[in-house]
Amino acid sequence: MSAVDFGAFVAELASESGRAILPFFRAHHAMEDKSAGGVFDPVTEADRAGENIMRHLIKRSFPAHGVLGEEFGNDNTDAEYVWVLDPIDGTRAFISGIPVWGTLIGLTRAGTPVYGMMHQPFTGERYSGDGREARYDGPGGARKLRTRQAAGLASATLMTTSPALFKGDEAAAYARVESQVRLARYGCDCYAYCMLAAGHVDLVIESGLKPYDIVALIPIIEGAGGIVTSWEGGSAAGGGRVIAAASKPLHEAALALLAGQG
Amino acid sequence: MSAVDFGAFVAELASESGRAILPFFRAHHAMEDKSAGGVFDPVTEADRAGENIMRHLIKRSFPAHGVLGEEFGNDNTDAEYVWVLDPIDGTRAFISGIPVWGTLIGLTRAGTPVYGMMHQPFTGERYSGDGREARYDGPGGARKLRTRQAAGLASATLMTTSPALFKGDEAAAYARVESQVRLARYGCDCYAYCMLAAGHVDLVIESGLKPYDIVALIPIIEGAGGIVTSWEGGSAAGGGRVIAAASKPLHEAALALLAGQG
Repeated sequence: MSAVDFGAFVAELASESGRAILPFFRAHHAMEDKSAGGVFDPVTEADRAGENIMRHLIKRSFPAHGVLGEEFGNDNTDAEYVWVLDPIDGTRAFISGIPVWGTLIGLTRAGTPVYGMMHQPFTGERYSGDGREARYDGPGGARKLRTRQAAGLASATLMTTSPALFKGDEAAAYARVESQVRLARYGCDCYAYCMLAAGHVDLVIESGLKPYDIVALIPIIEGAGGIVTSWEGGSAAGGGRVIAAASKPLHEAALALLAGQG
Repeated sequence: MSAVDFGAFVAELASESGRAILPFFRAHHAMEDKSAGGVFDPVTEADRAGENIMRHLIKRSFPAHGVLGEEFGNDNTDAEYVWVLDPIDGTRAFISGIPVWGTLIGLTRAGTPVYGMMHQPFTGERYSGDGREARYDGPGGARKLRTRQAAGLASATLMTTSPALFKGDEAAAYARVESQVRLARYGCDCYAYCMLAAGHVDLVIESGLKPYDIVALIPIIEGAGGIVTSWEGGSAAGGGRVIAAASKPLHEAALALLAGQG
């Protein structure tokens, strides 16, 4: 079974998780009254509702598959196929009402990311890829995703969730790259990687990622012609310190700056 | 004629400017080919197309009114009613593909902001207000906007476009506030003020604003129960250093920190 066959199933996971999560977005006012008897945390409730329905659908359709999820941990992760789920990537955006969070649905085969989708249920945007191709479906129609190949460092747009998230030497390494680019933008989590896949930005640099923050995005970025690795150039699938670049020359230039060269 | 009567006309301005601007959003790939003979700047083209259609509609319906716009400057701004237009507030978000920019349509009467709308054409969100009431129309339906009144500084979410935009003493003043809040988020321009009006965030602090960056937002924030002033507590309508707060106590606490007290 080729990885591409999972596309329709992933679309169903996205639709169902979106239906579970969206009622909680921007809903804290309506919900406050109901919490009189205890603490009500809409983002946690939404996270759990989204992951629950996805785990249910996976178990029903692919009982032999494993699942690694942000909310409910590991289940059978030694299986050949493992789903890697983050129902709400970008919880700070979610609680601030800003639709740049997303639901991340990734699939690994023998540890390698083979399919991924980022779904933004409020805007109706879906970015998906299998490492060879990547596509957008949403407002404005459907199209193939292609990274922007032309930008050099001096004309690049760089994104990161927040420069304040880098610790110690990481902050200096990140600052070396930021000082060389034309424009740095903050605040987008998974959405930033999809803007890179779609050719709108050129670099994303982060640290402290969990596997479920990045696995789903790898086949999208690579399918669009981009490169995503650790800061040392190895696999990004384990999370940690991650860099995504629109082109090979840009990736090399940024890696050198992160390492203190260049 | 009361300011509320302008609501239907502003809705038309939003629809028509959105139709003019939206084809340029995320369209730089499709457009690059056409620019072989010269420099093509999609955000400038979109800005001009959006402001042109709004100026045309205003001139046709209200020939005695003045217009102050980001792209085409001042026209008859001594008139009783003056429209204050920014077709694309948040150009950095626009060129990065991120839908947190907006079209700002404001109306002043004898210099006082009396009606305003922020329109996000990609998501279809409209936030509007007349200083007494404010409303949201878009995905999920229509509702009145109310700021969150309960948050103190220690539980507040603060937004600014980028901390790097503050110069000299401003950076230290901003940092004093950021150090006291629970969460700081970057990168949203006009969208941040609408999230404040909608009760999702509690403080927005910026500097270097032009009148067309803020005039349209004042009747929305005030209509939702919020407060927006200069850092010294005076009118925000002239732009410059602006603070918006969800509640009076929060406004006072943040003003004191900006001034180096508290």
